[in-house]
Amino acid sequence: MKKIGVVLSGCGVRDGSEIHEAVLTLLAIDRSGAKAVCFAPDIDCDEVNHLTMQETGAKRKVLVESARIARGEVSDIRNAKASELDAVVFPGGFGAAKNLCSFGQKGADGVVQPDVLRLVKEMAAAKKPICAICIAPSVVALALGKELSPRLTIGNDPGTAGAISATGSKHVDCAADDIVVDRDHLIVSTPAYMLAGSISEAARGIEKAVQATLELVK
Amino acid sequence: MKKIGVVLSGCGVRDGSEIHEAVLTLLAIDRSGAKAVCFAPDIDCDEVNHLTMQETGAKRKVLVESARIARGEVSDIRNAKASELDAVVFPGGFGAAKNLCSFGQKGADGVVQPDVLRLVKEMAAAKKPICAICIAPSVVALALGKELSPRLTIGNDPGTAGAISATGSKHVDCAADDIVVDRDHLIVSTPAYMLAGSISEAARGIEKAVQATLELVK
Repeated sequence: MKKIGVVLSGCGVRDGSEIHEAVLTLLAIDRSGAKAVCFAPDIDCDEVNHLTMQETGAKRKVLVESARIARGEVSDIRNAKASELDAVVFPGGFGAAKNLCSFGQKGADGVVQPDVLRLVKEMAAAKKPICAICIAPSVVALALGKELSPRLTIGNDPGTAGAISATGSKHVDCAADDIVVDRDHLIVSTPAYMLAGSISEAARGIEKAVQATLELVK
Repeated sequence: MKKIGVVLSGCGVRDGSEIHEAVLTLLAIDRSGAKAVCFAPDIDCDEVNHLTMQETGAKRKVLVESARIARGEVSDIRNAKASELDAVVFPGGFGAAKNLCSFGQKGADGVVQPDVLRLVKEMAAAKKPICAICIAPSVVALALGKELSPRLTIGNDPGTAGAISATGSKHVDCAADDIVVDRDHLIVSTPAYMLAGSISEAARGIEKAVQATLELVK
């Protein structure tokens, strides 16, 4: 059975993983007959009240909050090894851009959280597929842009696409329910809630993306 | 377009709505061409660390945490009116049994949160369908058991089924991916993670339950 790492960044669109995207990812992996294995970094994040969409000034723990989505089954990403995984998927949400890296704060000048960076580089070196959803391609762009110039999509927002391109990556416009596949670097991306107007629309793109990722597994 | 109320109870299986069940409910409603409208009570709950599964001693706000699942689009259940809804769905999670009612603490002696109780009674009086997932049938059992003796399932756990029966409701054993439909009282239930071993199995039951609920809408 294929083992697919799912990298979470908290629990909630504004300060963690976008919950619908994360659950739709787990569903698509399970329905494909593969096994999802969840990881998250053991770091703090800035808590956002999701009713007012304002930062509260408090902190939450990314690993502990990610456990809500994973029903307790989540490990520190420090323990994730590319040798034990067939592919990895990064659901979106601001947590991907603010906790897994600092693209959200610094754009193309951002850096990737060290344990996440190590895993992404290990996967790329091992020629194993990486799938990134919504704003999560920013993690891949910062990690691999200069070295590999991967083709990626975050939808069609000009500002965000420009910042992706400024990392050295090549941005490709894409519809909400479609995917971009970089067959040279085994990287799949889909815009999901960067563009989707409904959960069904996001689901169509995520199902295609997970399917394409599994097909790239050797 | 049919408007379906989705009653959330926080964000996380141990102190709120079970996240997978809530998202699968929203997906099934959207894919059926109906519109989901999320509600939650504006009350506190006991926070559980989902990595250790221990209570932390801190409180969280049920409405604010529910907004994470609803991407901000959730209203105080005090404002929910049966006259404006075609059906309501209660996803599971301990929050359904501990925040929406006190079945989790007191079994058949529990009571239902007043705003939730009002909505359930209004829906039943208006002959509009109610769908309850996982442990959420406990809310319906406490609200309507004595008056209507509805047929419900929470799966096949003897202790929980006994407590459901002690409310005056009739418990029916059911497989993880199947449903129980009480056509006299327009109440649909499915065990989901009370029994499901995977997200796909939970999804099959929830899809059937939402479909059956929409078919009961007059």
